[in-house]
Amino acid sequence: MTTSDIRTPASNQNADANSAADNGEAGTSIGWHKAYVTGSRPDLQVPVRQVHLTNGKAVTLYDTSGPYTDPNVDTDVRRGLPPLRENWIIARGDTEEYAGRPARPEDDGLKHTSPRGGLKNLDAVFPGRPRQPRRGRDGKAVTQLAYARRGEITPEMEFIGIRENIDPEIVREEVAQGRAVIPANVNHPEIEPMIIGKRFLVKVNANIGNSAVTSSIEEEVDKMTWATKWGADTVMDLSTGRNIHTTREWVLRNSPVPIGTVPLYQALEKVDGRAEDLTWEIYKDTVIEQAEQGVDYMTVHAGVRLPYVPLTANRKTGIVSRGGSIMAAWCLAHHKESFLYEHFEELCEILAAYDVTYSLGDGLRPGCIADANDEAQFAELRTLGELNTIAKRHNVQTMIEGPGHVPMHKIKENIDLQQEICEEAPFYTLGPLTTDIAPAYDHITSGIGAAMIGWWGTAMLCYVTPKEHLGLPNRDDVKTGVITYKIAAHAADLAKGHPGAQDWDDALSDARFEFRWEDQFNLALDPDTAREFHDETLPAEPAKTAHFCSMCGPKFCSMKISRSINEQFGGTEAANATADEIAEGMLQKSKEFAASGNRVYLPMAD
Amino acid sequence: MTTSDIRTPASNQNADANSAADNGEAGTSIGWHKAYVTGSRPDLQVPVRQVHLTNGKAVTLYDTSGPYTDPNVDTDVRRGLPPLRENWIIARGDTEEYAGRPARPEDDGLKHTSPRGGLKNLDAVFPGRPRQPRRGRDGKAVTQLAYARRGEITPEMEFIGIRENIDPEIVREEVAQGRAVIPANVNHPEIEPMIIGKRFLVKVNANIGNSAVTSSIEEEVDKMTWATKWGADTVMDLSTGRNIHTTREWVLRNSPVPIGTVPLYQALEKVDGRAEDLTWEIYKDTVIEQAEQGVDYMTVHAGVRLPYVPLTANRKTGIVSRGGSIMAAWCLAHHKESFLYEHFEELCEILAAYDVTYSLGDGLRPGCIADANDEAQFAELRTLGELNTIAKRHNVQTMIEGPGHVPMHKIKENIDLQQEICEEAPFYTLGPLTTDIAPAYDHITSGIGAAMIGWWGTAMLCYVTPKEHLGLPNRDDVKTGVITYKIAAHAADLAKGHPGAQDWDDALSDARFEFRWEDQFNLALDPDTAREFHDETLPAEPAKTAHFCSMCGPKFCSMKISRSINEQFGGTEAANATADEIAEGMLQKSKEFAASGNRVYLPMAD
Repeated sequence: MTTSDIRTPASNQNADANSAADNGEAGTSIGWHKAYVTGSRPDLQVPVRQVHLTNGKAVTLYDTSGPYTDPNVDTDVRRGLPPLRENWIIARGDTEEYAGRPARPEDDGLKHTSPRGGLKNLDAVFPGRPRQPRRGRDGKAVTQLAYARRGEITPEMEFIGIRENIDPEIVREEVAQGRAVIPANVNHPEIEPMIIGKRFLVKVNANIGNSAVTSSIEEEVDKMTWATKWGADTVMDLSTGRNIHTTREWVLRNSPVPIGTVPLYQALEKVDGRAEDLTWEIYKDTVIEQAEQGVDYMTVHAGVRLPYVPLTANRKTGIVSRGGSIMAAWCLAHHKESFLYEHFEELCEILAAYDVTYSLGDGLRPGCIADANDEAQFAELRTLGELNTIAKRHNVQTMIEGPGHVPMHKIKENIDLQQEICEEAPFYTLGPLTTDIAPAYDHITSGIGAAMIGWWGTAMLCYVTPKEHLGLPNRDDVKTGVITYKIAAHAADLAKGHPGAQDWDDALSDARFEFRWEDQFNLALDPDTAREFHDETLPAEPAKTAHFCSMCGPKFCSMKISRSINEQFGGTEAANATADEIAEGMLQKSKEFAASGNRVYLPMAD
Repeated sequence: MTTSDIRTPASNQNADANSAADNGEAGTSIGWHKAYVTGSRPDLQVPVRQVHLTNGKAVTLYDTSGPYTDPNVDTDVRRGLPPLRENWIIARGDTEEYAGRPARPEDDGLKHTSPRGGLKNLDAVFPGRPRQPRRGRDGKAVTQLAYARRGEITPEMEFIGIRENIDPEIVREEVAQGRAVIPANVNHPEIEPMIIGKRFLVKVNANIGNSAVTSSIEEEVDKMTWATKWGADTVMDLSTGRNIHTTREWVLRNSPVPIGTVPLYQALEKVDGRAEDLTWEIYKDTVIEQAEQGVDYMTVHAGVRLPYVPLTANRKTGIVSRGGSIMAAWCLAHHKESFLYEHFEELCEILAAYDVTYSLGDGLRPGCIADANDEAQFAELRTLGELNTIAKRHNVQTMIEGPGHVPMHKIKENIDLQQEICEEAPFYTLGPLTTDIAPAYDHITSGIGAAMIGWWGTAMLCYVTPKEHLGLPNRDDVKTGVITYKIAAHAADLAKGHPGAQDWDDALSDARFEFRWEDQFNLALDPDTAREFHDETLPAEPAKTAHFCSMCGPKFCSMKISRSINEQFGGTEAANATADEIAEGMLQKSKEFAASGNRVYLPMAD
């Protein structure tokens, strides 16, 4: 897109770009500001991140940070974000508001006998709640898939087309074919629409969630905004234990990105953690509870079928998916086929009524290198393929989850098989981790696998933080996980030849070659840390304009020498000539060079 | 190898494994100890790292940490390490001691007119120096390549065979064919021999070195031992500015791993940083100076030929290699072919006399994504192929350096072309970095590329630290760089199917599944950080034996559920049966499960 298409918030136009994006972080200073591209209607405002360079140019980047980085929007966690999509949803006329399921104490993990008669907590936080829940009228599928199939380009699709710099008709076609999903529950109007599919930018999911052991509601909401600030495209709330309903309400009302969950976790809490006490009814009630709140996609482990459980018995690490192990336990306890598998069509009808997207869980994913690509894993994948077909029949958008722990040489088989079995439905993988030997560095062991599988077609990468296998991620871990996965996703975009992806690299490399230090920092995925590292070696302000860096010192800089060569030969036919042609013309060039005084290697005094 | 082959230092046998490996680091507690495997002669002692597990088993790992982790060796930086290989070298009878080149003030970057008449500093540090330099008698090539070609299995080769758990005859054959190198200068007898070749474990190099801007000698020596502690297989000393001769002497005398350098850096210091003043004589003198000190491999940018320089003119970031840009500047200043290229045969004779290994530098490597795989880069690679052939004719061991910045889809072409052009000589690559957008995280952008190119055949990976492009790495950065690259190297070993590589992953995953937390930490690539991260969430000592982790909490642990399934079905025919066969036998299994009380999902109270 050209800069002229972009609207800058009024109060921002003459503002210092740094302050505009401060985001309330003490000590951060990010040299970009939020701007918007207007679509075919005034309420279709696509956010972008504009980095203003010291050479007068600007670079426009995809932005996931939501209204929080727009100084014109007065955000308040108790009020939630403005319901951007509300009018679009209403205008379609296929949904209805209804009273909805009342929140119950057990939704927050409180005992049925709790003296608190209801979720007073929730009422205190969102008095009256912002709106009644909404669902498809007369059992209609109100999904982006249904609209795409009947040839409709929704405002969401147009928004995405602008955001991805791609024809909205291609967006519609990819969704219609099931090759991409737009997670967008009708009860989550706050989101800025985004798409997950192999033809688009590779996306990154960040997991948050308290657990029985530690963490609080406020921390989780903060982790969500923190994760999106650094580039998370979706966030999964994997809370367990207390207050999960209330936590989720907070997270949803304040999230500009789609929110995913694993309803089974909450259902299990409702039966006090006894897997064998789970029932389809309790599960279904939980799905409706979450769909009414606005959860955009749900992980459903319906592929963990009874006969597959023994396939995991001789594995090195058995079943490592929480959801997978719960369902396996249920199947064994009842000697019955999984109730998720048995009731899958009914579940499709519920999800279609809210436009909740399936994320078909890989409950039997390998938990170590030794278990990769085994029979249990691929048996489940084949079942996910069947379920994908059923979901599509019900117009439910569907993506497929993937592993896990996989050595490099076995990664490609995963994506190839998934694409074949699941008719190119978006693949959504956790890493994969390429070795088991580095706890505390599993963002890196998995970032390697994530980049590769992204290149080969995975549409969304679920991040792994340094705390994986060891503990709960804190704020720093969330940032490290997101940044690592943005690297993997962008490396994949480059390798896929995604149009325009390399512009970002080129802008940063130009800045590097021209010693525009401030531009290098501002274009960096993490400007704060880049600046901090530079300051550590060369703290003085003049070093920000120095024509050298601390690696080689002032009189030893290869970039500097190289720039001189560039001045001698740049823009001539030399760069396109062969070595032999150049050798011929060399004498002439050399004479010119001598005439310039041989000053290729300029001492710093110059 | 079996545990019975392994000798434990006497004072160590009843010692606490933790304290034995303390390495003087306050607060570190590493649950392994140093042991040795004895070869065919008593002075052939191959170090290994033995991790003792709480289940009574032990895991034996490759160890690069040198005598520093052996409590029986009293190390003293002023005395240097014991000259392990000295008798082997003398016994070959093909070298002679000689007076050697006296150290001069300019070797340490001091002015010729300095009042200090000589390197008093050096004399003070190493009074009398440990020994006279040694070189091949009568112009003989005293290289491992020469020995391998005439069918000799040297003690170095036997040492490596034990270290890599591979037949020494294969070691000899790979060296003889030029597919592997053993960097081992006759003047660096302190090293524990190691091999670089695609048929062996992928190796990692760590760069250290002061610069004109910052850093001190003590810091550099400390960085070297620190890097080898975490797994660096070789270390390059890239010092510039003052005291580089003395720094190198310290580093060499205390290094258990091969040391590499770029002699051009020091030569340039000797002409006060004026590239045009460089001469073959000054360069040659510097190479001899460094060869006499014991440098094991030298980066030589002899492939930067005059006609290739203009090929870089229209690049986005020109020439980013320091050595490459110096040679380009020299070529342009004199309008002459590179003196390194012109004198390459003479250089071969010098290197052969000390068994210095060539690392043929890629002076024209791409410095950004846009410049990857361009004509300048591949023109130089073809010249490196020619030089490789010449070096082999002189019996000089040779490896080839590679990029740089390369997007994932262009990586394979690099290794394939290098292997073809350079007759399978070991490839030694810097990353490659797979995107330019993440300064401060280039250990990760490059770790991705490093893992991939390692899988495809690169023999050694040059690490990149988080400070790349921004500043000089400190101690933490060196550790992060080494750990990241050990991950990449090990992921590559797994993907190559290196025999035994997966044993490490399996041991760690077994420990994870069995909740042996201490074993998980001790087997981790970085036990300290793994332990610290675990303690952050669950600090109490009982948590180290808890049958759950902080990710899911006590009543929600998938591993725990899974273990129960394992107890039900493990070791039966089920794991090898097909899903259909299992379905048939399921009823019986289910009955057994019911008989056990349905307690798959055990509450924590149990």
